[in-house]
Amino acid sequence: MIIVKIGGGEQINLSEIIEDLAEIKEELIIIHGANALRNRLAEQLNYIPRIITSISGYSSVYSDHKLINLQMMAYAGLRNKRIVELCHQNGIKAVGLSGLDGALVTGKRNAGIRINEEGKTKIIRDLSGKPCRLNVHLINVLMNAGYTIVISIPIIDEFNQAVNSENDDIVTLIHSHYQAQKIFYFIEAPGLLRNPKDEKSLIPVLTRNQIDSIEKEAEGRFKRKIRGIQKAISQGDTTIFIGDGRRRNPVKNALQGKGTRIHAL
Amino acid sequence: MIIVKIGGGEQINLSEIIEDLAEIKEELIIIHGANALRNRLAEQLNYIPRIITSISGYSSVYSDHKLINLQMMAYAGLRNKRIVELCHQNGIKAVGLSGLDGALVTGKRNAGIRINEEGKTKIIRDLSGKPCRLNVHLINVLMNAGYTIVISIPIIDEFNQAVNSENDDIVTLIHSHYQAQKIFYFIEAPGLLRNPKDEKSLIPVLTRNQIDSIEKEAEGRFKRKIRGIQKAISQGDTTIFIGDGRRRNPVKNALQGKGTRIHAL
Repeated sequence: MIIVKIGGGEQINLSEIIEDLAEIKEELIIIHGANALRNRLAEQLNYIPRIITSISGYSSVYSDHKLINLQMMAYAGLRNKRIVELCHQNGIKAVGLSGLDGALVTGKRNAGIRINEEGKTKIIRDLSGKPCRLNVHLINVLMNAGYTIVISIPIIDEFNQAVNSENDDIVTLIHSHYQAQKIFYFIEAPGLLRNPKDEKSLIPVLTRNQIDSIEKEAEGRFKRKIRGIQKAISQGDTTIFIGDGRRRNPVKNALQGKGTRIHAL
Repeated sequence: MIIVKIGGGEQINLSEIIEDLAEIKEELIIIHGANALRNRLAEQLNYIPRIITSISGYSSVYSDHKLINLQMMAYAGLRNKRIVELCHQNGIKAVGLSGLDGALVTGKRNAGIRINEEGKTKIIRDLSGKPCRLNVHLINVLMNAGYTIVISIPIIDEFNQAVNSENDDIVTLIHSHYQAQKIFYFIEAPGLLRNPKDEKSLIPVLTRNQIDSIEKEAEGRFKRKIRGIQKAISQGDTTIFIGDGRRRNPVKNALQGKGTRIHAL
């Protein structure tokens, strides 16, 4: 089993990624973002997403009902279905699902995010949750029938409400059930960079210890991503490939060591 | 098997419909529209859908790439996922799928629509197709595993491209495979009306002959709907209920004869 996480950046070249994936003979599970699309749509609809940063340094979008609507349109709607279309054009029998469908991914509603506002600690609650239960039955039923699942947020919570969630946490949850041999992350960079502003500062290979020290220095969304990779790497004999999702042959390049490769051991 | 077609009008009361459906013990397939939502979104995004009327009197939306994007957002995204969420809140294990997912509904691309423009006949081609193949395998796999399918456009065509299609044609296609005992249509009216402007002109019961004569007089989208009903009624021993999707207990009311009931024989 191979897990593929496709980033939601504007420059991600979906057709190159899907074309390359079609040549892989192992079972795939695809998870995708739609960040840039959601932001553009939000702007066009005059909705300004609010970014909150917790005291511990993680930042995330404040998820109200309208934001979930936007996610349903951008992630589960437009992006998911265009990826499914591309899959079919490349011979992959894809079925696109949000975490809501068949309660594929159930989350536990976040109790609240501790933020610092003008020197005071406040707790903010929103429509977001942490993925904690995977409908393995539904995945197996579809995979055994020959389908490749393409997953997007939102997910469902314990009250059967649609909530926002982090894609990287879904990757970790799926990996905890299926112990993927390989996990691909396609991003808008050549791989992990020593200096985020310098594309030439690529880190080609990382060990677990090295990723731990990177996590300590990281901030915001990037910190969360690194945490996800740490968790993935702690389970089973997995190799993680962080590759450039903007260029030609992203899968082949990642496999040939052109991005960042992280080994479990 | 029961097929439920939920209209895409602004006043359709989704939660009442789903709550009522949860009490039905038979297998369900739900198909829904999102007309009003798509139109509102189109307006907000400054996209003006073009309506074309064929020489034979059928009208439809001219489907370009942007319109398909809108459909993915409004139908397969927001509307589909909110219905799936409501289903879970009422104990229905729903899986939302567009016609693209697993190539659930394959259409044959329309050769072109003959229109009359300033006295001249022109042929217009767009991204639309007629549903002609149903992935019965995927439906059965999911139904046997205990899931209720919630279907929306767009569908996929013979070139593996996303295309627009008529929901009523999808209803007919599904019915041709499953011979539903009952088909519900929930609309923004008490049922079929003798005079579309007079809600008191409800036609409570119709025979096949009567529906044939209504079809001859109908125009535009309504004509297409009546055609769909004609086709459905010509297959198997089916009762069609056209009920008010705006009021409380829409399913119960329809079953109690408060809308229009059409018998096959």
